[in-house]
Amino acid sequence: MLDIQSIRQDFPILNQEVNGHPLVYLDNAATSQKPQSVIDTLVEYYQKYNSNVHRGVHTLGTIATDRYEEARDKIRRFINAKSTKEIIYTRGTTDSLNTIAYGYGRANLSEGDEIVITPMEHHANLIPWQQVAQATGAVLNYFPMQPDGTLTLEDVRKTITDRTKIVSCTEVSNVLGTVNPIRQIADIAHEKGAIMVVDGAQSTPHMPVDVQALDADFFAFSGHKMLGPTGIGVLYGKQKFLEAMEPVQTGGEMIDEVGFQSATWAELPWKLEAGTPHIAGAIGLGAAVDYLENVGMEEIRQREIELTDLAYDIISGIEGVTVYGPQKRAGMVAFNIDGIHPHDVSTSLDAEGIAVRAGHHCAQPLMRWLKCESTVRASFYFYNSPEEIETLAKGIKETKEFFGHVF
Amino acid sequence: MLDIQSIRQDFPILNQEVNGHPLVYLDNAATSQKPQSVIDTLVEYYQKYNSNVHRGVHTLGTIATDRYEEARDKIRRFINAKSTKEIIYTRGTTDSLNTIAYGYGRANLSEGDEIVITPMEHHANLIPWQQVAQATGAVLNYFPMQPDGTLTLEDVRKTITDRTKIVSCTEVSNVLGTVNPIRQIADIAHEKGAIMVVDGAQSTPHMPVDVQALDADFFAFSGHKMLGPTGIGVLYGKQKFLEAMEPVQTGGEMIDEVGFQSATWAELPWKLEAGTPHIAGAIGLGAAVDYLENVGMEEIRQREIELTDLAYDIISGIEGVTVYGPQKRAGMVAFNIDGIHPHDVSTSLDAEGIAVRAGHHCAQPLMRWLKCESTVRASFYFYNSPEEIETLAKGIKETKEFFGHVF
Repeated sequence: MLDIQSIRQDFPILNQEVNGHPLVYLDNAATSQKPQSVIDTLVEYYQKYNSNVHRGVHTLGTIATDRYEEARDKIRRFINAKSTKEIIYTRGTTDSLNTIAYGYGRANLSEGDEIVITPMEHHANLIPWQQVAQATGAVLNYFPMQPDGTLTLEDVRKTITDRTKIVSCTEVSNVLGTVNPIRQIADIAHEKGAIMVVDGAQSTPHMPVDVQALDADFFAFSGHKMLGPTGIGVLYGKQKFLEAMEPVQTGGEMIDEVGFQSATWAELPWKLEAGTPHIAGAIGLGAAVDYLENVGMEEIRQREIELTDLAYDIISGIEGVTVYGPQKRAGMVAFNIDGIHPHDVSTSLDAEGIAVRAGHHCAQPLMRWLKCESTVRASFYFYNSPEEIETLAKGIKETKEFFGHVF
Repeated sequence: MLDIQSIRQDFPILNQEVNGHPLVYLDNAATSQKPQSVIDTLVEYYQKYNSNVHRGVHTLGTIATDRYEEARDKIRRFINAKSTKEIIYTRGTTDSLNTIAYGYGRANLSEGDEIVITPMEHHANLIPWQQVAQATGAVLNYFPMQPDGTLTLEDVRKTITDRTKIVSCTEVSNVLGTVNPIRQIADIAHEKGAIMVVDGAQSTPHMPVDVQALDADFFAFSGHKMLGPTGIGVLYGKQKFLEAMEPVQTGGEMIDEVGFQSATWAELPWKLEAGTPHIAGAIGLGAAVDYLENVGMEEIRQREIELTDLAYDIISGIEGVTVYGPQKRAGMVAFNIDGIHPHDVSTSLDAEGIAVRAGHHCAQPLMRWLKCESTVRASFYFYNSPEEIETLAKGIKETKEFFGHVF
């Protein structure tokens, strides 16, 4: 059992009032809050050993380089990659997925080849594939979805063909909370000779991730959603794929020899990291991994299941409220209240100190599929409490009542 | 006159010993140190209002969005851009220059077109142009350089032809310290119908920059070299060029409408900012701009001229030492000691607490031009003192003597 009060003490931002009420932060799918240990790591970096990495031989530079590379190894262990050569620092999931689409996809797709994704993808795992399809003449196909927003392996088998070269799928939907059977999809993709790309933005912070067990060929995630600083993320790729990839950005740090007309590249992982990296961000993400491992990813997943079951049961039990997505899900509940615009709902909740998000959640095609413009989304992390879920439910009921009286 | 002791109190990292000696940090061209006000801004962000931007309507999200956009306007004022639409947050100079090369260059160059750069470019303003030249069939030409590492306008006029579409030039060489006459080069480029791209990584932190006065079409710089956090930088572009550019990365935050097969883009500047941005980094860069403006960019430039003149005079006066680059320069001195490898020099100086850099400084073609493999480089910022220059000079003399006795 996690000691929730003790955990919440580690997150300074949670101990404040917003609009005269204790903050109830339920926007964790957008970004997570940071424990003091991560903040302290950033402060220590800037106060004690800030220096550029990999280039010089002075003391601060050596310390910074060591910490930067130690963080890479922490991340490698965290997702069970084979080698630090497979861990590329990026700006975030979007940057990672673009790098895969442009660096691997554009070089390996030709006319008539097929890319398959799902209708529940975040724009970050959707528009890059549209762009690459348009540039190469490849076709962008979609797995069908069940009414509850899940995939069936039968549909997956039918949709992946001999022309399919890339299957790209989120492990967890950022709206529905659907947890997709990545390993099984990867197996089917691999049988057909396609590679498996995984958007891990919503899974990596919330459940154990083992890229080898998933047999993912590429796997992308963000630091800021998993207690880390903003501006840092990770692209994991199997070494053979990363070796074969041309860099999508070039410049300092990623070269071997540079002449006036051409250049050769450094070894992995640096080949894919052009320019001065986000050094503080990488080291801070290492500290976030330390914190998560200390709590335990199994414990985090278990706690979020309890919170989400509670939220799902209460919210879906409120008359006039539609909850989207399957019952078995990751830590979020997207919903709408009949006749009330989601932005009004979130504004009304915000007045009670409850932070939820309203909008299309960067998933407009999914909104079309759901036949709505937008939804409210409450998303949880292990530092949330059952009392906060009760506060949310109370807020939803009051909002419904208030707008019901007004209109 | 700047109060150097008071300024140094603002930078916690400077008040420490390294290898038993007070730290003498002379690696500012690689990265600058951070004042406490910038560190405090990051801590405040993470402790009080960390939230994703532009998407939601809750209180923390509104505060974060406001601060993020306020920082953009600070940066706009700092470089005198016309509009915040012209200020694109990137990961750094490398990211900015790659975005220009791939987003503008690749779309606008065809076989036989010419790109002109200088032999003193950092790899970040060199390899992307090699790549784009190879992809489009364009030709990559170089301005000739004078023996002291400067350009002449006569050579500039001769090298830019009717086929030249892009001229890209660093404002300040990161090795020689050469300050290039950007406005005059831009005028010649514009007369011939070419656009002017400027690498401002080494100028923006150290002297007043006015992109309108320079008439730069694109201008790139990094936050971490100008007191800001790592992982954030800026791409400035004249609005008409940014409007015409296709995004090089796609995903969340940068769209208008997204369908299953295609998407349309948001307005500037967001069109070119895919994914969750480095929110803390942008706000931190805003705090860095505040600090710099409070000190005064003219004062900073003046102080660095004094420090650099002193360093140039002393170091070039040491027998057996070669200093590279012109006498009139920005705040750095690259040099070699006869018969001693630059890495040995920097290691020897590091033992005295003096942080300088040794290597090719991401400018291998320039090293070839200088007929050396690498150099030592001492680079200054306004928080350095004349006493530190004296310490450096003493260290160089002792290093020379020590190695002279040994070999």
